[in-house]
Amino acid sequence: MRTDGRTGAQLRPVTIEANFLQNPLGSVLISFGNTKVICSVSIEDAIPRWLKGAGHGWLTAEYSMLPCAGCERSPRESTRGKLGGRTHEIQRLIGRSLRSVFDLTKLGERTLWVDCDVIQADGGTRTAAVTGGFIALELAVERLLGNGTLFQTPIKERMAAVSVGVVKNEILLDLCYAEDVIAEVDMNVVMTESGKLIEIQGTAETNPYTKEMCMEMINIAHGGVIQLLNISKEALASL
Amino acid sequence: MRTDGRTGAQLRPVTIEANFLQNPLGSVLISFGNTKVICSVSIEDAIPRWLKGAGHGWLTAEYSMLPCAGCERSPRESTRGKLGGRTHEIQRLIGRSLRSVFDLTKLGERTLWVDCDVIQADGGTRTAAVTGGFIALELAVERLLGNGTLFQTPIKERMAAVSVGVVKNEILLDLCYAEDVIAEVDMNVVMTESGKLIEIQGTAETNPYTKEMCMEMINIAHGGVIQLLNISKEALASL
Amino acid sequence: MRTDGRTGAQLRPVTIEANFLQNPLGSVLISFGNTKVICSVSIEDAIPRWLKGAGHGWLTAEYSMLPCAGCERSPRESTRGKLGGRTHEIQRLIGRSLRSVFDLTKLGERTLWVDCDVIQADGGTRTAAVTGGFIALELAVERLLGNGTLFQTPIKERMAAVSVGVVKNEILLDLCYAEDVIAEVDMNVVMTESGKLIEIQGTAETNPYTKEMCMEMINIAHGGVIQLLNISKEALASL
Amino acid sequence: MRTDGRTGAQLRPVTIEANFLQNPLGSVLISFGNTKVICSVSIEDAIPRWLKGAGHGWLTAEYSMLPCAGCERSPRESTRGKLGGRTHEIQRLIGRSLRSVFDLTKLGERTLWVDCDVIQADGGTRTAAVTGGFIALELAVERLLGNGTLFQTPIKERMAAVSVGVVKNEILLDLCYAEDVIAEVDMNVVMTESGKLIEIQGTAETNPYTKEMCMEMINIAHGGVIQLLNISKEALASL
Amino acid sequence: MRTDGRTGAQLRPVTIEANFLQNPLGSVLISFGNTKVICSVSIEDAIPRWLKGAGHGWLTAEYSMLPCAGCERSPRESTRGKLGGRTHEIQRLIGRSLRSVFDLTKLGERTLWVDCDVIQADGGTRTAAVTGGFIALELAVERLLGNGTLFQTPIKERMAAVSVGVVKNEILLDLCYAEDVIAEVDMNVVMTESGKLIEIQGTAETNPYTKEMCMEMINIAHGGVIQLLNISKEALASL
Amino acid sequence: MRTDGRTGAQLRPVTIEANFLQNPLGSVLISFGNTKVICSVSIEDAIPRWLKGAGHGWLTAEYSMLPCAGCERSPRESTRGKLGGRTHEIQRLIGRSLRSVFDLTKLGERTLWVDCDVIQADGGTRTAAVTGGFIALELAVERLLGNGTLFQTPIKERMAAVSVGVVKNEILLDLCYAEDVIAEVDMNVVMTESGKLIEIQGTAETNPYTKEMCMEMINIAHGGVIQLLNISKEALASL
Repeated sequence: MRTDGRTGAQLRPVTIEANFLQNPLGSVLISFGNTKVICSVSIEDAIPRWLKGAGHGWLTAEYSMLPCAGCERSPRESTRGKLGGRTHEIQRLIGRSLRSVFDLTKLGERTLWVDCDVIQADGGTRTAAVTGGFIALELAVERLLGNGTLFQTPIKERMAAVSVGVVKNEILLDLCYAEDVIAEVDMNVVMTESGKLIEIQGTAETNPYTKEMCMEMINIAHGGVIQLLNISKEALASL
Repeated sequence: MRTDGRTGAQLRPVTIEANFLQNPLGSVLISFGNTKVICSVSIEDAIPRWLKGAGHGWLTAEYSMLPCAGCERSPRESTRGKLGGRTHEIQRLIGRSLRSVFDLTKLGERTLWVDCDVIQADGGTRTAAVTGGFIALELAVERLLGNGTLFQTPIKERMAAVSVGVVKNEILLDLCYAEDVIAEVDMNVVMTESGKLIEIQGTAETNPYTKEMCMEMINIAHGGVIQLLNISKEALASL
Repeated sequence: MRTDGRTGAQLRPVTIEANFLQNPLGSVLISFGNTKVICSVSIEDAIPRWLKGAGHGWLTAEYSMLPCAGCERSPRESTRGKLGGRTHEIQRLIGRSLRSVFDLTKLGERTLWVDCDVIQADGGTRTAAVTGGFIALELAVERLLGNGTLFQTPIKERMAAVSVGVVKNEILLDLCYAEDVIAEVDMNVVMTESGKLIEIQGTAETNPYTKEMCMEMINIAHGGVIQLLNISKEALASL
Repeated sequence: MRTDGRTGAQLRPVTIEANFLQNPLGSVLISFGNTKVICSVSIEDAIPRWLKGAGHGWLTAEYSMLPCAGCERSPRESTRGKLGGRTHEIQRLIGRSLRSVFDLTKLGERTLWVDCDVIQADGGTRTAAVTGGFIALELAVERLLGNGTLFQTPIKERMAAVSVGVVKNEILLDLCYAEDVIAEVDMNVVMTESGKLIEIQGTAETNPYTKEMCMEMINIAHGGVIQLLNISKEALASL
Repeated sequence: MRTDGRTGAQLRPVTIEANFLQNPLGSVLISFGNTKVICSVSIEDAIPRWLKGAGHGWLTAEYSMLPCAGCERSPRESTRGKLGGRTHEIQRLIGRSLRSVFDLTKLGERTLWVDCDVIQADGGTRTAAVTGGFIALELAVERLLGNGTLFQTPIKERMAAVSVGVVKNEILLDLCYAEDVIAEVDMNVVMTESGKLIEIQGTAETNPYTKEMCMEMINIAHGGVIQLLNISKEALASL
Repeated sequence: MRTDGRTGAQLRPVTIEANFLQNPLGSVLISFGNTKVICSVSIEDAIPRWLKGAGHGWLTAEYSMLPCAGCERSPRESTRGKLGGRTHEIQRLIGRSLRSVFDLTKLGERTLWVDCDVIQADGGTRTAAVTGGFIALELAVERLLGNGTLFQTPIKERMAAVSVGVVKNEILLDLCYAEDVIAEVDMNVVMTESGKLIEIQGTAETNPYTKEMCMEMINIAHGGVIQLLNISKEALASL
């Protein structure tokens, strides 16, 4: 059993506070256990310069952590004057994942900004950000359909993300920080409701792993995604 | 009467959620109406290079806004690669104000970082940050006294901050954003419990103002500071 | 008596060399004692992007110090790659103060740049910069009226700035550096000729101060502003 | 058949010029078809500050492209003043992959720098960089063993990387640029000689993909890795 | 005699691999002994903003070194976030030199980018870059004439560059790194085929030098330029 | 005759105000006609990191222009966040030139900073900066000898710099801006009192020039340097 009493394939408690902020089009405060991320979606009536003339819109994501989110205070990237590699890697993952279920041609020449700000970090911040970012996107699209900006939803299918890892040879779903730092393998899986893969990133931190192990991890992640989509559906239904 | 029904000398509803985050030494989520700021305090066992050999510690503050905090999304300073002038001005004000009631010689060769992150902005973010930053500092000092890091509190006196402005020739306390943008004069006042001034910054946005008006604004601000200190005392007492 | 023999309410010797540079529209070398600042005003036939369509102009200020201006050489901000917080704070103060007596609608879609470059620093650089910046602005406006660019002066009222502080419990006007570093309270006051306040920034460096002290400091600053305006009027009259 | 006549599971022609540069400890010019990367390894007798006291060394990678490497000239990141997200993502992948087969405790308190500079780009630059970076690392370790700096090889197992994608529903190995831009799925696989996974990154560019497809792609990539390791073994044997 | 057996006025072996890269308009891998530089020329259908309306094109150069090019690994300027002074100085020299024999009015409103990337450094990288950059420019112009973009060559005269220095009181042509670091005088000369000077930069590293010495150095450099132009003519003829 | 009435080999009026600033070790306000540069020298009791253990000191120069120095206001490099190539090129020239007549081993492990700040620009700013920088250096060394920091002067020989150019086929000394922009050749010459060359930089702006022309320009520059050294000797003698 895990230190917090979970079984290997069990998620941490997930909470979703929809419309957490008043200004963005859509926003959510999502918790995966002690990991808490504010995700919000804004719209801009313009597209990036390199897209001029393409006839469709754009969706991009930014990710950041409050300096006090983790165990030790980490310096602000704004003060250091540049984004770190980890931030770049994560925000590219979020944007890419959301775009894969989003039809940009239905957005018109507009940009959606998905901001994911981690206010407390205990492992799994990128999967919480993808999952919460998608819910904020659903809320934003609903609002845009409601006010007549959009006529058809650009969302092609629902999706969520979860981490899965190998700790002491055992596969564990949704690693907390204490598990993450000792994991032999660390994988992040983004999947659709129908069980298709959007993104898989699996890294052998210390020990390379077999193809069989890889497949098993994906299966356990799939279970986690299904649960996350059910939880978010309920949260949105109760609005 | 004001659009939200307040009298001129009335604060917006103030809420204080102490220990909002689990990792920092002290933290608070403070609301002045719809303005919401997470303030947290961390400790570092080192002092800035320019202080080497001074035999005492340091306290510094950083301020930031989530991109979605305001009405329009604003680009991240981390992405732009530098802090704006407004951010610099505000975080210098916060640090200077807190240091004026803090005895650095009682801190030892350590640095306290006060992080003020605005998650929702509706006017008065800097005064909410000073007020919340001070409460987080009180919580942090209590913890440091509790675990034996400090033996005497370095806090010399309690303090709080509030804005006051002139709108259509009337003095208004604790301006919300809609009032702030049309204010003729904008003043931020930081005061101690005993009614002494720590910092006063009064700016004629459009019309220079008389010395009498200045004094009256300070008096009204004084009333606001007293209320804020009472509210925060109650919030901490109920912990 | 002060180390340089002044009484508490006495300015340092002030000198003003108008049209110190040949290229800018208006320029001045102003000295407050050993503090020397070159202030100059240039015009650009464009407005900032965020002002497009507003139908009026803009006035902005920049402030810098030569590396050798002070006692110790300080590294250039151009070499460090970013402006420090102090620079940001000061140049925002200068711009804001000048704009408060300047009617931007009479400028047309143009930008005035006010550059304040400290070549020698001995306390009070920001107040010398505001005072000298205003004189350079007067010279520039005169030139623009002369060459038919403007038809009406956008200047609404004359203004100047001076520092005032508390040292060993005594209020002193126009602090030099040696006084500034030991001041208990440090205040900068920008006022109009008619005695109205444009900006007041008062900071308790070590000891919070009473409201009565605040008012007294403003009164003494007022006296200094009157003197400065007389001196500058004479200097311009002798051109 | 593919436009260049390859079957789906066939690599492009691979060439390896070992010791391409005279100064680094180890270097290689590797080509995957028209993609050409210079990989080199240097040693520094120091470790990063955050590793102080850890008692072992570090291995890190940097990746860059000449501005003229691709079809269109791309601006230099040195001129723009910051690394792009793609560069960060790739160089983190290279470093992480190499470290997973490298025993840092056998390196002593030293840092190995693996530089991967793309001089011509036609798809698959990151997998060519990982593969070439590993060969340069082998050459460098050989040199360090030869000159007595190291006594035991820190390399735990040989490894290589290859891309695999889905184009028009068909799985293709080692995509060239023309294939890459139209791929529905894009995957990069880093594997050991014994067929274990070090890193897998699979992205649905347009269409989410099934778990079965994922497994098939990994199998085809495995075949590519085996071929790459054979080619590099021959190249090193002929030195 | 020199350590590599050359006489004072002898060049190192020069090799020129034309069209080294497939994507740029023109490219060359040039070697001056162990110094190797990839020079390439690209075209952009735009001109810099400050040239708008000038009615002619622009030619600019950029210079960089791979981190492993020299004896010791040098940090990337992209990672450090800014170009060093040496890089700026060299790329300005390259651009200025090439423009002096290039008629920008015959280019139309286009920009030519000349990229010089040093992959191995053993002294004389800037003169190899100028010489190779000019050859790449010739190749690019030929291509532009061939495809009808240009009707007349903008190249006014052929040119090349070489270094010359004083080592132990003896004048040496084309210094390698070992000679360069002990040189008393270091000079770079850019000349046309007809023997006219385009650029001369002579620096006394340790001992100021006489005007006679200066003239002698220019004469020896002239001999080197003639040889370089012959070698490059042959290399292009054999294409 | 030139537009300002000078003959070809005549300098503009030169003025030297020694000890212009009170804080630096040595300082000067130098004018070459309307070009005015403040040069100052400061000392730091440390040496750059890369010089650690070398057993001698360092001398370095920085160059900047006030935004209003020229005809058009130019943006500050501190605001833009980086030094331009021209600035880099000039400050490297100044430092290199001064070091060539300065014995760093006589300085001890100290750094001299030579700051050259152009307050008005009318051509020849870099040669005025070298010339004025050297005079400030002489003043600083005198002070260091006087207070016992140094026992022997590190200055090996006096030096100065001047520009010379070709305008409409005529050689002109010390070009003003109006001449500089139309010059066919532009050369900067730094020489010692004994007539030896320290640095020569000659650029064909539009037309390559003959070796004979080059020699004649150097001779005319030599005459200018002699005059400048006489003027500065007188200025210092009158202190």
